[in-house]
Amino acid sequence: MTPQVQRAALEAPPDLLIDPIVRAALAEDLGRAGDITAQACIDPDARLGAAFVARKGGVIAGLACARLALAALDPAAVFQERVQDGETVEAGAVLAVIEANARAALAAERVALNLLCRLSGVATLTAAYVAQVAGTRARILDTRKTTPGLRILEKYAVRRGGGSNHRFGLDDAILIKDNHVAACGGVGAAIDRARERAGHMVKIEVEVDSLDQLREALARRPTIRRPDVIMLDNFGLDALREAVALTAGQVILEASGGVDLASVRAIAETGVDYISVGALTHSAPILDIGLDAL
Amino acid sequence: MTPQVQRAALEAPPDLLIDPIVRAALAEDLGRAGDITAQACIDPDARLGAAFVARKGGVIAGLACARLALAALDPAAVFQERVQDGETVEAGAVLAVIEANARAALAAERVALNLLCRLSGVATLTAAYVAQVAGTRARILDTRKTTPGLRILEKYAVRRGGGSNHRFGLDDAILIKDNHVAACGGVGAAIDRARERAGHMVKIEVEVDSLDQLREALARRPTIRRPDVIMLDNFGLDALREAVALTAGQVILEASGGVDLASVRAIAETGVDYISVGALTHSAPILDIGLDAL
Amino acid sequence: MTPQVQRAALEAPPDLLIDPIVRAALAEDLGRAGDITAQACIDPDARLGAAFVARKGGVIAGLACARLALAALDPAAVFQERVQDGETVEAGAVLAVIEANARAALAAERVALNLLCRLSGVATLTAAYVAQVAGTRARILDTRKTTPGLRILEKYAVRRGGGSNHRFGLDDAILIKDNHVAACGGVGAAIDRARERAGHMVKIEVEVDSLDQLREALARRPTIRRPDVIMLDNFGLDALREAVALTAGQVILEASGGVDLASVRAIAETGVDYISVGALTHSAPILDIGLDAL
Amino acid sequence: MTPQVQRAALEAPPDLLIDPIVRAALAEDLGRAGDITAQACIDPDARLGAAFVARKGGVIAGLACARLALAALDPAAVFQERVQDGETVEAGAVLAVIEANARAALAAERVALNLLCRLSGVATLTAAYVAQVAGTRARILDTRKTTPGLRILEKYAVRRGGGSNHRFGLDDAILIKDNHVAACGGVGAAIDRARERAGHMVKIEVEVDSLDQLREALARRPTIRRPDVIMLDNFGLDALREAVALTAGQVILEASGGVDLASVRAIAETGVDYISVGALTHSAPILDIGLDAL
Amino acid sequence: MTPQVQRAALEAPPDLLIDPIVRAALAEDLGRAGDITAQACIDPDARLGAAFVARKGGVIAGLACARLALAALDPAAVFQERVQDGETVEAGAVLAVIEANARAALAAERVALNLLCRLSGVATLTAAYVAQVAGTRARILDTRKTTPGLRILEKYAVRRGGGSNHRFGLDDAILIKDNHVAACGGVGAAIDRARERAGHMVKIEVEVDSLDQLREALARRPTIRRPDVIMLDNFGLDALREAVALTAGQVILEASGGVDLASVRAIAETGVDYISVGALTHSAPILDIGLDAL
Amino acid sequence: MTPQVQRAALEAPPDLLIDPIVRAALAEDLGRAGDITAQACIDPDARLGAAFVARKGGVIAGLACARLALAALDPAAVFQERVQDGETVEAGAVLAVIEANARAALAAERVALNLLCRLSGVATLTAAYVAQVAGTRARILDTRKTTPGLRILEKYAVRRGGGSNHRFGLDDAILIKDNHVAACGGVGAAIDRARERAGHMVKIEVEVDSLDQLREALARRPTIRRPDVIMLDNFGLDALREAVALTAGQVILEASGGVDLASVRAIAETGVDYISVGALTHSAPILDIGLDAL
Repeated sequence: MTPQVQRAALEAPPDLLIDPIVRAALAEDLGRAGDITAQACIDPDARLGAAFVARKGGVIAGLACARLALAALDPAAVFQERVQDGETVEAGAVLAVIEANARAALAAERVALNLLCRLSGVATLTAAYVAQVAGTRARILDTRKTTPGLRILEKYAVRRGGGSNHRFGLDDAILIKDNHVAACGGVGAAIDRARERAGHMVKIEVEVDSLDQLREALARRPTIRRPDVIMLDNFGLDALREAVALTAGQVILEASGGVDLASVRAIAETGVDYISVGALTHSAPILDIGLDAL
Repeated sequence: MTPQVQRAALEAPPDLLIDPIVRAALAEDLGRAGDITAQACIDPDARLGAAFVARKGGVIAGLACARLALAALDPAAVFQERVQDGETVEAGAVLAVIEANARAALAAERVALNLLCRLSGVATLTAAYVAQVAGTRARILDTRKTTPGLRILEKYAVRRGGGSNHRFGLDDAILIKDNHVAACGGVGAAIDRARERAGHMVKIEVEVDSLDQLREALARRPTIRRPDVIMLDNFGLDALREAVALTAGQVILEASGGVDLASVRAIAETGVDYISVGALTHSAPILDIGLDAL
Repeated sequence: MTPQVQRAALEAPPDLLIDPIVRAALAEDLGRAGDITAQACIDPDARLGAAFVARKGGVIAGLACARLALAALDPAAVFQERVQDGETVEAGAVLAVIEANARAALAAERVALNLLCRLSGVATLTAAYVAQVAGTRARILDTRKTTPGLRILEKYAVRRGGGSNHRFGLDDAILIKDNHVAACGGVGAAIDRARERAGHMVKIEVEVDSLDQLREALARRPTIRRPDVIMLDNFGLDALREAVALTAGQVILEASGGVDLASVRAIAETGVDYISVGALTHSAPILDIGLDAL
Repeated sequence: MTPQVQRAALEAPPDLLIDPIVRAALAEDLGRAGDITAQACIDPDARLGAAFVARKGGVIAGLACARLALAALDPAAVFQERVQDGETVEAGAVLAVIEANARAALAAERVALNLLCRLSGVATLTAAYVAQVAGTRARILDTRKTTPGLRILEKYAVRRGGGSNHRFGLDDAILIKDNHVAACGGVGAAIDRARERAGHMVKIEVEVDSLDQLREALARRPTIRRPDVIMLDNFGLDALREAVALTAGQVILEASGGVDLASVRAIAETGVDYISVGALTHSAPILDIGLDAL
Repeated sequence: MTPQVQRAALEAPPDLLIDPIVRAALAEDLGRAGDITAQACIDPDARLGAAFVARKGGVIAGLACARLALAALDPAAVFQERVQDGETVEAGAVLAVIEANARAALAAERVALNLLCRLSGVATLTAAYVAQVAGTRARILDTRKTTPGLRILEKYAVRRGGGSNHRFGLDDAILIKDNHVAACGGVGAAIDRARERAGHMVKIEVEVDSLDQLREALARRPTIRRPDVIMLDNFGLDALREAVALTAGQVILEASGGVDLASVRAIAETGVDYISVGALTHSAPILDIGLDAL
Repeated sequence: MTPQVQRAALEAPPDLLIDPIVRAALAEDLGRAGDITAQACIDPDARLGAAFVARKGGVIAGLACARLALAALDPAAVFQERVQDGETVEAGAVLAVIEANARAALAAERVALNLLCRLSGVATLTAAYVAQVAGTRARILDTRKTTPGLRILEKYAVRRGGGSNHRFGLDDAILIKDNHVAACGGVGAAIDRARERAGHMVKIEVEVDSLDQLREALARRPTIRRPDVIMLDNFGLDALREAVALTAGQVILEASGGVDLASVRAIAETGVDYISVGALTHSAPILDIGLDAL
């Protein structure tokens, strides 16, 4: 991942959008009685200095979640970032240092880690895919296969790992899939119908299952009637290469389906522009991070 | 664990608790303009018959989420379960059949699948751990390392996979960990303080890092002052065996730390009562399920 | 705009998105004690048959809001639409007929009308602009100058009036304006920076204030680096014509600024593709509609 | 508008009630990904000095909304009011000056303006009506024909324009209209029933359609059984004058129906106490205000 | 108060306003895991027939809360009222009979009873005060000393017990108290200021601490400038009688302060119009009601 | 109440959980127009110094609610506690002194007092029960008969009064009652079924109605299968004593049913461990506290 690609990614969502997620997570964990262990074992005025420490190496994302979780329980807490989201760290790296009311820090710990570990896991897995395709023109894309309630955070983590974002929801772009094609009576008819009805600020992508469908999509005239992006769904490597040749750069091509770390490089080398990987958000293991008392 | 014990596990949360999660997920996906692809390509009155089909084998959990997602967009939709949560299915199995307004079905599809695949992934991974420890006394436990906002669902999925639930939050039991021990000046002092302050309906668990700490915990007198559960954190197999021998069934023992599918059986064979596995909820890959038009 | 193009506009948002708006409006009007006039003067079991009647002619939008307001207070109420959203009606036209608990109907009346009148006002004003540009290639666009909380409804009303939607929010397309240009050091630099950073599913529009800026925007190479849409802000008619000639159909052109019913036709005749009109949503008078007892 | 009338108006709602409206509006505009244009084109630490400037003359209302919108995205932003709500300004007047994080300022701009322009539009239209009736005893009243979700703000804007508020909702006063009269079997019976049932802290108004109904309302005995206010609905000028003479100051009289800027003075000169104007809130064009970089 | 006056009291709030309170109460009680006892001990499909039975005699209020609590967990449940809110029942009376899913019924039981017992307690205590003043002109009033979150329900219960409602909140009438008088420089000045600023649909009450203050309040001229209601705060019986004589029916008089069941009749016999009793809502013991399986 | 018992109680819930309750209460009281009396009679910049003063003696709980109510309306207000929650005060004691914007202080007053008086009432009644059982082994317990929406606060107040908390909800412990016993076919069967299905961190209590049922509960083998707590429901004093003798300290015993201040000491002297008293939260009169201007 080159530096400018990383810089080019969209920035973190504003605290205004993250804070409600963090507070809901705290409410879920605190329940009705709050942290009864800390209430029993920690003096109300005790202080805790502690560090968020990576137990394994990876790419960090979500430090704002940890900061906001702590601030929600102790508005006067100190939270000093030692790395920034998007940085690659080694096992043992100190990510942030905190100094806060001890009860507040312990009550916020699990929520802070649940978000930070999960988002860093997404960023780390994304970075692994991005590394695999280094030197090709292909970029790694996420999908809408995100955790319900965490989409804005997980898509942010994908960007921090060097990936790009596909649609954020059903409403910000058109993606014509097999059911829509069937309902319209063909790829071409579906594209035409979408072009006619879509707003001028909305991009249109169509999923094709064969080279014939690809040709039908490319054949829309005038060229402005063509889809902006064509998704090549479950194409083999030969078919992908032929699709790239057929398209000749006139439309953005996205490869999709059955992509894993072992297969992604070969797919990238076919010359497609984007490769979408649902696993980035639906199956990323966490990055193990802990909170160590200082 | 015998089959009827598994059936006996706590049931699904009531729709009253699941429905807000599903509706929030739909709102996240629909955004402001809704499913603009379906609006463009599908007639408003078109119908869709479709089936939720497992692409891989595993244990199913979360069919209620799919049902509620569809009902939220088409209250008159038909949703017929063909299997029940907790069942193990083969790849290709039909999980449920639906008949609904086509736009509603397509708009609900991703949310339904995001929840169903994720929860079935948790159930499937849990079942794999449970299978590993078959024949031992050990039960597989989850942790609080759950996805923010989805805890009640993920813990339900663990139960459906044959696992047991640890605490649901910071407020429903006391779990004394290293920071609390340090604050109180020792394992014994921490237990005493918790016993003194905890309500009589609240169980107390203490995490110990060594056999010495275990002995200190077991030495509380009268025996009613002992913790209800002792967590043996990152003990080796020999230490676990010694802990089991020392404890002699007087207190429930939970092994924790660094457990994976390769190591869990050996741990179970030491004789501990419970083995907690964070990965059940923080790193389970999804179970691939799709919605196929009929 | 031909009739089928109007029919092709994006459909109404699902009830799932409208219902919370309607219920919040009812809560605002009912306050704590509810409709104390109806409670004092109407028997609890009295029935009311009534009709929503247009007091003036116009284009109707928002019947679903009226239906949902009534249903929220009397789930068994009958609501029969006599026209559909998007239809042009004469003064005196019956829009819908209801039969419901009388208290519920009277308590829902003002909320139903506040939404229905307001949205029909937006649709009617939009239709007036659309009629002015009939026969030209120009389409009428809305803006983000909508009523806080009602954006999805007002943009729907614009579509029902025959207009098209611009962005739904800050997140679904890029629109580079003067402040962004200044921050980047020029139109071209701003476009380049946005192209580099924007996702591939995101369209980019740039606002230009002069023909020089237009030329700079058109000069990006390769052509895929050009903006998708160029907004000609406050251009005179001659400048608009020159811009259309310069652009030669390579990029979509939107005219913006100081558009009113008197000026819109001349602007449309310059050959621009879109004309955006903030007044559609920020200054539309309501369409007068009442609820008459039968 | 005389100074003491303005002073007499109820003050602005507390921030506690405005802030949720502002934050919901920001969430609506930011969507999931936030302001992607600012993220692409503005450096994260850039600052922006800017001024809210009136593009046309009018009466200002809603500066608190602009302040809170900015503060929600940049809690450290500076917001200095140069005028106060209720002041009449000329085109070009600087209303407030801000200094803030540039991304935050640009992301808050549209929400701030949408509220400020709309409320200032209401205040300005109200002031125009108030000016028309200057020197008469009549005061200008709003109605419940407000924008759903914005009632407390729009009624505040009416006060800032020199108008008075009618009911805030269905629960804070009784207003007997034609349907209630019909249900009770006559104006007198309806008044009696309302008097009998209403709380002692609740005022009662009745709408009458004729002088006969007015006489029936005035005839209630003892006088404490009369309505507090009588609304003369769609009375001609002669009938209004006769109503004023008949009533002789014993009950407050409100004229209603078909009032516009051209007709309001003549109505006021009949001697009525209040004139209610739905257009103040349902059809006020915005006051054009912009945010100019300094 | 005659029976028909009691029937005339304002009716129950619509379900739309009660249901969110009931659902929030259920969420509070169900927590994360729901009713784990019923899950463990009751078969999922078991049915339960049961009756809500009064353990002591009193006035019933809040049956709608019980109905909605049950419906929230079992939409198909049967709930048959045997008495109506406002009825006086003996110990042992069956209030309602239900037939429902057994788990749902048991999970809803406590919330249903918590609301029903509390509201019936308020109604019963109110009825006791009302009975004490029978035959006098005095009516019993509540205050704003209600349980946070339950005001609309508790004020409804007061009406069901035969009492009348004072203000529902700070916004629906003006009540000038000692701090306001001090800020304005005297009772008369405070009344004048309130009259000048209050809307015409808003009643004004002033609290006076002495006969001199009462005289000052009554002396406002013209008479329409007088307060609508005067509260005689902590007046002795002689002072109350003198206040009634002085006022001579020109203004409504409310006695307040130190009222209990022993003292209320003597106060009522002084001739005041209203007597407000904070204890109705802040200190009413519940009416004991249980749910008995049939 | 001995000092260490008080110290042992769980601490106050974090502000994060209290603040939403306080803000909802303020919204309920402010309604739409806010405090119109203060707006009319108090200058916007006026200041108020005032003290919360106990009108009667008792145990204080809920000062945080008063603090948060004031801070919600005036973030810069000064709130100085003069006593702490849990302290017993005499009539006339100053609990806290405030200095704030006068309008904010007056608008927050009623909400602050409604919570503070109610919670102090709960604490005071609890302390009275606790005092009655001084010198016995019995502790006073609350129940789930709390005010909907205020459970966490009322249970906190019970602790401040020296009592202990029973379950916080249906999900944090198992309590087998008569309906569950009936469904399972007996006390023993119900216990067995609950033991089999409950999580290892969940305590189990069973309600018994007779000594025979008690014997059945105690007879579960091995002893770890016995319930953790047995509730003796409506046992007479002799039966309680016999139950204590039978149980011989092997299981915690809770007496329940028909407990009042007159009977509680005799019950305590039977040797039971806990006595639960629904009246603590369902029928506690408030402690009278006022806000006096300084």
